[in-house]
Amino acid sequence: MEGMMERECGALGSLFQAVMSDMKVSYPVWEDFISKASKLHTQLRATLVAAVAFLDSFQKVADMATNTRGATREIGSALTRMCLRHRSIETKLGLFTQALAGSLIGPLQERLEEWRKMTNQMDKEHAKEYKRARQDIKKKSTDTIRLQKKAKKGETFGRGEMGPVLGSAMQEVTDTYLLLEETEKRAVRRALIEERGRYCTFVHMFRSVLNHEVSMLGDVTHLQTILEDLDHLTKDPHKLPPASEQLMMDLKGTDV
Amino acid sequence: MEGMMERECGALGSLFQAVMSDMKVSYPVWEDFISKASKLHTQLRATLVAAVAFLDSFQKVADMATNTRGATREIGSALTRMCLRHRSIETKLGLFTQALAGSLIGPLQERLEEWRKMTNQMDKEHAKEYKRARQDIKKKSTDTIRLQKKAKKGETFGRGEMGPVLGSAMQEVTDTYLLLEETEKRAVRRALIEERGRYCTFVHMFRSVLNHEVSMLGDVTHLQTILEDLDHLTKDPHKLPPASEQLMMDLKGTDV
Repeated sequence: MEGMMERECGALGSLFQAVMSDMKVSYPVWEDFISKASKLHTQLRATLVAAVAFLDSFQKVADMATNTRGATREIGSALTRMCLRHRSIETKLGLFTQALAGSLIGPLQERLEEWRKMTNQMDKEHAKEYKRARQDIKKKSTDTIRLQKKAKKGETFGRGEMGPVLGSAMQEVTDTYLLLEETEKRAVRRALIEERGRYCTFVHMFRSVLNHEVSMLGDVTHLQTILEDLDHLTKDPHKLPPASEQLMMDLKGTDV
Repeated sequence: MEGMMERECGALGSLFQAVMSDMKVSYPVWEDFISKASKLHTQLRATLVAAVAFLDSFQKVADMATNTRGATREIGSALTRMCLRHRSIETKLGLFTQALAGSLIGPLQERLEEWRKMTNQMDKEHAKEYKRARQDIKKKSTDTIRLQKKAKKGETFGRGEMGPVLGSAMQEVTDTYLLLEETEKRAVRRALIEERGRYCTFVHMFRSVLNHEVSMLGDVTHLQTILEDLDHLTKDPHKLPPASEQLMMDLKGTDV
């Protein structure tokens, strides 16, 4: 019985140590993630600046088409709509970029410090509780062994009054083992909750970044309609559309 | 009649010149567009490199979660799916970036040279045709005036045989005007087709870039599904899920 309980407590202790060790080796991975996310953030900001300049220039091309005569004006207004839609995408990319820094990189960096402290604290607390329980078990085991010796001596001299005392001492050892087992289980549970909680926190932080991404990609739906308009407006490039032919008719009209 | 035709031809000529002038002033706008698109392309390439490194690092976080014990493993596998989906988005962003250079910037730059040559050529041809028609009209008008003078002289001397000759000469002036008008109309039509054709070409080039952008939309639906999974997996961060509780039960199981 005692051997089995010893093994069970040992297995729980190993599980606690394994979870703690996983958390301890995780820091370089989190740090690398923060570093790579920061680099991506820097690049995205530079891309945003280039995208704004590109869209300004694209708008000038659209304006140029809008200021022509005849059917080409319509191509210009479709290009303007295309440009406006991209400005909306660019705004959302900006929010995504901001969220990457403000909702993920910054908060994660802060948490990382807390996490380190928390692991050390949990480790210390567990060691203290474990040591105390171990000492208790050792003391009570020694008492039992002493009583067992006494009982043997008593048997030799034909006295049996040690029986109940010994039974109660052995029960106390068992109880202390059960207490240690409960303590170890609580420690394992705390460690598992802490570990899972970190990924939950990470997902929660990441989520607000991804929300912007999803809303940005949603804008792409509107692009399809504009693309269809442009396809329709630019077919038969070698044929002059009625609106352009009308230009020459109008010249005649004004002079007749 | 002659005055009205003169005005009509003049209006057509002005329209031709206006379209030509629009095309001529367009080059700095196209050049600026190419320059801004090139800068955007450079930034996008740098962002892609950063995105690849970021996703590698993100995958390591996902792997870390997958290698834990209990319920956290499932968070890891959802994060892996999230990472894979982003690799697909990153691939499409790569194709978009490639198309920006290969289907838009490069081809547009080549066209710009052709466009410049084409405008000069159209301008020269029109000037030549116009000059020839003008000289023809001038010559025929002079003939008519000469005949008119002769006819007046004839009237004075009571001779009327100049009538039919004069009529035919005046008809010839009118015919030459009609010819000039047709020539001018053809030139305007050519200029309008050329101008519109340039925007059609531009839209066609841009379209293959935008197709890649639109294809990213397809990934959104998948992102949303994974986000919902993650929401479900990370709720109640302070409660240990059954799969994690089971871990401790299993320890007991192996030893009993």
